[in-house]
Amino acid sequence: MSSVLFVDLDAIVGNWRTIRSRLASGCRAAAVLKADGYGLGAAPIAQALHQAGCTRFFIATLEEGVALRSAVPGAEIIVLNGVEPGTARLFGPHRLIPMLNSRPQIEEWGSAGPCALHVDTGMSRLGITLEEAQSLPPPPGLMLISSHLACADEPDQPMNRYQLAEFAAIRAHFQGIEASLAASSGTFLGLEWHADWVRPGAALYGVNPMRGQPNPMAPVVTLQAKILQIREIDQGRTVGYGATHRAGNKARLATAAIGYADGIMRCLSNRGHGFVGDRRVPLVGRISMDLTVFDVTAVPQEDLFPGASIELLGHSITVDDMAEAAGTIGYEILTSLGPRLERRYLHQNRLGHAQ
Amino acid sequence: MSSVLFVDLDAIVGNWRTIRSRLASGCRAAAVLKADGYGLGAAPIAQALHQAGCTRFFIATLEEGVALRSAVPGAEIIVLNGVEPGTARLFGPHRLIPMLNSRPQIEEWGSAGPCALHVDTGMSRLGITLEEAQSLPPPPGLMLISSHLACADEPDQPMNRYQLAEFAAIRAHFQGIEASLAASSGTFLGLEWHADWVRPGAALYGVNPMRGQPNPMAPVVTLQAKILQIREIDQGRTVGYGATHRAGNKARLATAAIGYADGIMRCLSNRGHGFVGDRRVPLVGRISMDLTVFDVTAVPQEDLFPGASIELLGHSITVDDMAEAAGTIGYEILTSLGPRLERRYLHQNRLGHAQ
Repeated sequence: MSSVLFVDLDAIVGNWRTIRSRLASGCRAAAVLKADGYGLGAAPIAQALHQAGCTRFFIATLEEGVALRSAVPGAEIIVLNGVEPGTARLFGPHRLIPMLNSRPQIEEWGSAGPCALHVDTGMSRLGITLEEAQSLPPPPGLMLISSHLACADEPDQPMNRYQLAEFAAIRAHFQGIEASLAASSGTFLGLEWHADWVRPGAALYGVNPMRGQPNPMAPVVTLQAKILQIREIDQGRTVGYGATHRAGNKARLATAAIGYADGIMRCLSNRGHGFVGDRRVPLVGRISMDLTVFDVTAVPQEDLFPGASIELLGHSITVDDMAEAAGTIGYEILTSLGPRLERRYLHQNRLGHAQ
Repeated sequence: MSSVLFVDLDAIVGNWRTIRSRLASGCRAAAVLKADGYGLGAAPIAQALHQAGCTRFFIATLEEGVALRSAVPGAEIIVLNGVEPGTARLFGPHRLIPMLNSRPQIEEWGSAGPCALHVDTGMSRLGITLEEAQSLPPPPGLMLISSHLACADEPDQPMNRYQLAEFAAIRAHFQGIEASLAASSGTFLGLEWHADWVRPGAALYGVNPMRGQPNPMAPVVTLQAKILQIREIDQGRTVGYGATHRAGNKARLATAAIGYADGIMRCLSNRGHGFVGDRRVPLVGRISMDLTVFDVTAVPQEDLFPGASIELLGHSITVDDMAEAAGTIGYEILTSLGPRLERRYLHQNRLGHAQ
């Protein structure tokens, strides 16, 4: 009876279709599944998306690619971190395609098979420079050129136009090779950013790709913390480590089996909240490793018992809401969700465990 | 070639012995292994400690207890979250001992076997109240009474003495039953806090149990981020999402295969640092999900190549140092360390993978 993370695969597929419906003519939508599908489970997500027609997946590391291959034998899998020293021979048996990021990676790969090429246009993170790209013949097996936007969630940032112009120069150099620039937010910058492939990740999982505007994506995750114990405390009694919360009145508290080890960031102490039904329940005291306490005084007593749920993410609290309260982005909320949470998957309107 | 988390089991055993050497006469030291051994791997840690003479382990959930049982068939395992509705019959086959936290849990357990009892003295989190405890006969099978300090890392907090007095009243009521009050920090409050068992967790893993004083614990973890790519950027060029770092001069950058999905909290963006050898390398730009960029301009070029390491935790940067930079506690740094990090274990001076 651990706390439960529900992942709505139908909503993920719906979000992928929403993106696909908005693409420029001829552009296709891949899906990004790195960090175990942003913490939600790469394998079941890949299977649901593959069934819906998604043929290309991006992950970060060789190990993630090997793990994903058995889930989607028929799909293309591209490894964003590329080929590291001594690992080229490990790609072939799993039909993994490296994103080559540097001259050493290009040399390491040689002509070992299909590959993608990452050209940096403003992240200064991975990728060869435009000048390097323009001096290079296409590596053998090159099937995709790719770049990545630094400020796609800020449509008015001049960086976006700058990167688009650099990207156009890359495409001109590698004529006839498919190209990809936009991830989630880039896709929503407009048709001219779409090129041949878009690579949505966070948007598939319900994170708003258009900061400050209505979210075009459906919510995907519901996080239900399980109540372990209900207690009443007297006025003046303190709660949790450091005694940082003091009850102003007699209060009823619910202690839930979830903590920062499960991804409820400790910085939400005395700031976060949950819902029991439609009642907002403030999080009181410091979040501990395995436990979090909520003030449930406002909740009807019949809704409070060991095993009852407090919703921490869902329709009333989005991933973006929790991220804002924690001073971060939805992406980090998702990847922080811990391994103790039981994952349950909704697929084609049926609820089940993974696989 | 993912980034690597080295866990020094010899240091954990050494820390456990350090604690044991400081205990009041007759007091014994258990070990807390919840949240998969604070993110470091409960099974190998339990085996090393059991070999060294530790016979009692605490974990949070039934699932953690089941997983740990096969690693240490001969040890006592106590489940801190206790027995949830309908789960009593699942404890026996794995010889797990519940910490009973409430009247419903006491009723649920009945006389199903050995049990511990948690009496709350000031956390308002789990546990029956002192008044409830004083009105109860000892539950059948009771072998330990336990409470938990809220402010043990602040020795001058009056809460500590208050809780000690309440605890004395509990012990008086349950005469002849062993008792435990102190976790890591409580152990260092002094001999009168030791009772029959102390329950160190974080201190075993190198977190300082005495805030603001020299750390009596040896460091346990070393985190080596692997360099994927080295690049030079011109003055004025920006780094990462949101272009939040701009190179003041021509700079050399190293992009490492580690990100917030691996537990390098995003709030360390533009604030954290690492070491290459004895050179401090500042973290520049925003941390991304799978990648982090460091300014390595000060590092000799022969130390910079794909596959080289940047130390993010170790002798030069402790878990507590990183926690301070991130505005949290070492406990959360440890439990945030992600599943992609390869865990390697040092045991009896030999390096190996787990198990």
